[in-house]
Order: sequence, then structure tokens, then C-alpha cells
Amino acid sequence: MIVQKYGGTSVGSMARIEAVANKIAATRAQGQQLVVVVSAMAGETDRLDRMARHWSPTPHPREHDVVLSTGEQTSIGLLCLCLQSRGIAAKSFTGAQAGIFTDDIHTRAHIQAIDTQPLLAALEAGYVAVVAGFQGITQHGDISTLGRGGSDTTAVALAAALRAEECQIFTDVDGVYTADPNIVPEARRLSEISFEEMLELSSEGAKVLQYRAVEIAGHYQVPVRVLSTFAPGEGTSMHFRTERKNQVSGIAYSRTEACISLSGIPSHVSWLPLLKGCQAGQWETDLWSQTPAVAGVKSLSFLVHRRDLHPVAAWARTWMAQIGGQNCSIDDKVSKITLVGLGLRSKADIITNILETLASQGISVQSLTSSEIKVSLVVDEEYLEESVHALHAAFELQHADTHLCSD
Amino acid sequence: MIVQKYGGTSVGSMARIEAVANKIAATRAQGQQLVVVVSAMAGETDRLDRMARHWSPTPHPREHDVVLSTGEQTSIGLLCLCLQSRGIAAKSFTGAQAGIFTDDIHTRAHIQAIDTQPLLAALEAGYVAVVAGFQGITQHGDISTLGRGGSDTTAVALAAALRAEECQIFTDVDGVYTADPNIVPEARRLSEISFEEMLELSSEGAKVLQYRAVEIAGHYQVPVRVLSTFAPGEGTSMHFRTERKNQVSGIAYSRTEACISLSGIPSHVSWLPLLKGCQAGQWETDLWSQTPAVAGVKSLSFLVHRRDLHPVAAWARTWMAQIGGQNCSIDDKVSKITLVGLGLRSKADIITNILETLASQGISVQSLTSSEIKVSLVVDEEYLEESVHALHAAFELQHADTHLCSD
Repeated sequence: MIVQKYGGTSVGSMARIEAVANKIAATRAQGQQLVVVVSAMAGETDRLDRMARHWSPTPHPREHDVVLSTGEQTSIGLLCLCLQSRGIAAKSFTGAQAGIFTDDIHTRAHIQAIDTQPLLAALEAGYVAVVAGFQGITQHGDISTLGRGGSDTTAVALAAALRAEECQIFTDVDGVYTADPNIVPEARRLSEISFEEMLELSSEGAKVLQYRAVEIAGHYQVPVRVLSTFAPGEGTSMHFRTERKNQVSGIAYSRTEACISLSGIPSHVSWLPLLKGCQAGQWETDLWSQTPAVAGVKSLSFLVHRRDLHPVAAWARTWMAQIGGQNCSIDDKVSKITLVGLGLRSKADIITNILETLASQGISVQSLTSSEIKVSLVVDEEYLEESVHALHAAFELQHADTHLCSD
Repeated sequence: MIVQKYGGTSVGSMARIEAVANKIAATRAQGQQLVVVVSAMAGETDRLDRMARHWSPTPHPREHDVVLSTGEQTSIGLLCLCLQSRGIAAKSFTGAQAGIFTDDIHTRAHIQAIDTQPLLAALEAGYVAVVAGFQGITQHGDISTLGRGGSDTTAVALAAALRAEECQIFTDVDGVYTADPNIVPEARRLSEISFEEMLELSSEGAKVLQYRAVEIAGHYQVPVRVLSTFAPGEGTSMHFRTERKNQVSGIAYSRTEACISLSGIPSHVSWLPLLKGCQAGQWETDLWSQTPAVAGVKSLSFLVHRRDLHPVAAWARTWMAQIGGQNCSIDDKVSKITLVGLGLRSKADIITNILETLASQGISVQSLTSSEIKVSLVVDEEYLEESVHALHAAFELQHADTHLCSD
């Protein structure tokens, strides 16, 4: 049994839905049982989201999900109708019908359990099962959505629950690259990538596969392959070997960040309550860094997803007022760049290389953190493309290497 | 408790959804518990239907419904978000969530049962309950739709199940008229109409209220009022008194018919199998009429909804081949006109008046049937407007009368 996922671009028009149906027919012809997960048609989720935000920037999450989830429901119906017109038995499933149960954190729900019975019955009866990505149902029977990119999560979670042979993520690029080929034309496609590297790349803005999908794939050891809907090829397969080399294997970036800087915080104050407030709000924050205290006050800065900027900034100002802090400034024109490699043991070399490379271009690094397999830095958004390009060259990612195969 | 239904034009844009929210707020301010049924935004069902028919004129009904039902789901979410932005607690319900169970005749399902518990709980908790019209769920958990105009049926069925004080059908006209005001400018709005008259008008193409909705209203004696979303006024209320006057009270028409004529049928052959085949296919047919046999053969003609023309024509040809009939001809350019009045006892006068009126305009009547409270006739589609206009004048429907109040 195979699980295939087709993203919004892949089902973005009637002609593209036909191309997907042809791919499905080809897989079927090999005698495979097939579960297909689809996203909303390209642009549809944005259109629905704009309507849902017409009266408030923070629409009620339950009703927001009711609106957003219609995009995928339209896709599953259309794909089934196209398959049926080609003589292929197909049956559609909304998240609820597919037994995908989530928690009740609307717009960013987590899958908690999958009742595989309805899908197994359909497969048994000879149907291609076409499942709406991105959505599920809460224990109260409310429609929930999993957040942007959630269709990847649906596909990998279904592959895990159904013990599928492989989860194939069809998208508009033909695999995972050393950097975004739109910015770095000399970027290479990787034929294999380790789970850990994929986890970091996806957590740091590489859009090819959603972070939570990678997490679930790792937890259940689901074989995942990323490949193109539009071009032939083997794509990039994710493996679970843990060879550790001291090498940068890819660069990811994110333009969706804002930086909040708090200064004049009394040195004895802990910022744990601030962090906990962000967790309680389910707000995405990252790269927390604190300067040592000078003259009895210290500074703190962190990144926040721009979507959450409004509530986080309000909460930060409230907290600063409570503790008698002095200044809160916001920069929503920053970008985050992350270099990923399995086992970056000699980080000092890498950080030196990064700083020298950017300095030679006259680009200043606003902040920088590192972990076992990644280094993240923040630059002015204006310099994002120039920085990614320079770093890709500095780490010679355009060349094949022993660690990662290139084609 | 009041049930209000808003059609597609009433929720056809963000601004119109706001106008609906204001109406709901006004009803709420009177302390009423409120269930609101909404249609898909104007044009949306057509758009979804076109997509669903992209690969076949007869898409698989189950998947057709999956696509069509998204239109209403978007509307309920948006209306709730708009109400919430005005501080009104609102909760949306898909057909399934509202406990609306139907049979499994997809695209034309009938409501079989309503579990009122979810809606009553929401009303009890102080919410305005916003329900997706036109849709339900089968006993197998499949999404079903009720056919065009099905939101009226949803509203009246909910009003019956919840024992609402009144079911208010908000639409783009301010009530029920003696004829379509677009064709007959001198048509009058009726302040009251009897159930029986409304039943006939709606079965004969008056689009103001769906036929099945009127049937259900009659069965459960639900007080129904038709009124305008856009203009003030008391609209038209439907009553259940059965005063019988010999009077034409309104004219309806339908442009969605085709006429099938079968000739050269051996006189001993019964056409009951033909009729039963149409019933089995759930195809809408009407005005069956048979001529007496001449020279051992007879003729038969009937109307069919153009939507069903393809399968009905195929079935009629099959049947004709089986029984050795001679000729099957199809005219898909006919219109049906129906004159309705409670207790048309002196039908001969009325039929004479009809035939004389149309003859004086040079319009030929292709067929004509009559019942206790209506007379239906078929004319060439080209003469539809002229015929309605002439008949409206001939029966003096522009004048107030003692039977029906005018405003």
C-alpha cells in the first residue's frame, strides 16, 4: 500500500487534476492499494482565509476552520469525479470521514488518533481512497485544521497508521535541494537526506515538507519520498541512518519572522513567565537570546511568526509593564537563515565562515544561535537573497560531495 | 424561537452578509432564540456544479454532493465570523452537525429525521445557531444534498422539528406575487396566501419557495412567511385556512421543461412500465397525456425536467424499441405555465378564457391539463412572456380582490 500526497499546485486546475489522475492510474496499474491525500486548489486556502479575516484579523478559530476546510473538500470530490471518469473506482473522505481525530486547538490542531477502519474498508472494496488533507475532527465533532502545510502531516500520519510501504509527497519541485533553487540557481537536488537534516530544514523554513510531518515520519519510521508531480524522476528519499559528518548539507530560510527586542529588564527578573505566556498562547517563537546584565539591566530578543506578532507584542508589553522594563521594539522586516548538517561538530569553523562570508558582502548578522545540527542567523530581510547566495557558495554546496549523493 | 432562512443573493457578498448579521442582531434584540439557515453565496453552487461536471455530464452523485456542499459550509462560517465581530455569540452547523439525516438519493435527498439535540443545546447556551442549508448526512455518514432550493426545505423542516413560532424565508423579493414581476410589472404582492395555492405555485415553477418546503410546512402546519432581505415590509404569510373561492390567484411558469412525444404505440400496450422506469430513475416528469388510439396506434406525450432529459429520452427510446413503437420526438424549447386558485370549480370558464386569450395573441397551446386548484399548459418557449402577460391581464390579477389581500 502506498500513500500519495498532492499539494495545491498539483491540483491547481482541472488540467492538473487530470495529470494527477493519470499518475494515480499508473500506480494503480502496478496493483498497489492507494490512499491519496490532497490539498486545496492553489490559491483557494488564501482566498478562504481572506474572506474569514474580513471582519477581524483574529477570527474565531472554530468558524475559521469551518471556512478553511471547504477547500480540501472540494478537491477530494473533484479528484474522485476525474478518476471515475477514467473508470477508476474512487471514494472521497473528509477528515472526519477518514477518522482523523485531533485536539481542539483550532487552526493548528494535532492529530491524536486515526480510526483506520473506514479507509481499510474502502481499500478492501477496491477503491482508491481520496482523503482531504489539512483537516480532522475534534472529540466534540467540530471541524479542525492542522495549520499550513498540514496535508503533509495528514499523509505521513495516514502512512504510519496504515503501515504503508511508502509515503510519496508530490509537489512542484522534484526533490529536496541544498538551497532554494529560486534564489540559488546552482543548488543541487539531493537523492537522499537523513531524517535529522530534513527535520531541521523543514523547521527552518524549507517549504518542501512540513515540520510536523517529518516529526511523525521519524517517530513511526515512515519511508517518505519527495518528488515532482510535473517532472519524472526519483525525487529525494528520507532515510533513518545516522552517519555523522561534519558538513553543511543545506540552507533554509524564512521570511515570515518578526524580531521583538526588550531592553532595560531589571537583571534579577526571570523571563520564564514571558516564555510560558507564549507557550500558553500557542504562539510560535524562536531564537530567544539574552544579553548579560550591564548596570543592573539586561536585554532580551526573540523571533516570532508574523502571524502571531500582534498578540505576542501585546503580551510582551504587558509583561514589560509588570516587571518595570524600559523598552520594547519590534522589527518585522527580518529574515532567518539556517544552515543544516548532520553532526556539525566543528561549529566554530562554520560560524567563522558564515560571519566572514557575510561581512565581506557588507551584511550584518543581527543574531546567531547554533545547535548540534544547525546554525541559525537573523539578517535584515532586504539582504536575505544575497546572504543565502553567498553562503551557498562559501560552503561549496553546488558541488557533489561524499556525504550526500547528487544526480 | 424563530427560524430564518437567507438565500444565496442575501449572502452574496461580504457587505450583504453584514446586512444579514444586522437583521439577525435586530431579531436577537427582541429576545428571540434564533436558528438561521443559509445558502451558498450567489453563483457559488453554479461554480461548484460546473467544476463537478467538468469530466462528465452525469458526475457520480456521492462525489457531486461532496463538492456542492462546500458552498453552504463556507457561508455558515463567514456568517458566524461576522456575527461574532458584532459581539453576537454564534455557532455554525453543517448538515451533519445539525443532525439532519437524509436518505441516500444523492443530489436530491429527502430529510428523514432531525436530531434536534445539538441545536437545542446551542440555543440553550445562548448561541445563534447558523445551519448550512441544502445538505444533510446519510445513515452511512455520506454527505448528501437536497436539490436546488433545498435550503428552504432545511429551514421549514428545522422549524417543524424545533416547533418554531415562525419560519421566515428571506429572499430577494418582498413576498409572493400574482405573477413574476419581472415579466408582469403590474403583478401584485399578496399579503397572505393559502397553503394549497402556495403548493401549486411552487410546484409549477414559482421560485420564491421550494415545493418540498411547502409540503413539509403543510404537513407540520409550520407558519411560513416570505419576506425581503433588502426591503422592509411584512412580506407574504402562508395560512392554513381552506376557504374555497372560484378564482385564479396567481400564475407560475417554468422554463426548465422539455417535451417528449411518442407516437405509433400499439393500442393494447400499457405505458405503466415507462412511467415506473421514470419513477425508479427519480426523474421529474409531468403532464402525461395520451391520445385515443387511431388505426390501432396511440400517442403519448409528457414533460421532463431538462436536467433529466438525457436519461429519460434514452429510456423512452429503449421502451419504444421493446414495444415496437414507431417514433420518439423531443422538443426542449417548451415552457409550462400554471394558473393557480383555491377551488377552481368552474374550470370550463377558466380554460375557455385561457384558450381565447392566447388564441387572440396567435399563441398555440401545445397541451393543457387541469386539477382542483390549477390549470397547466405548455407553449413554445418563445411565447412564454407574452402568454403570462396576456393571462395576467385576462384574469385581472392586477386588481385587488376579496379573496386575497393586496397592499
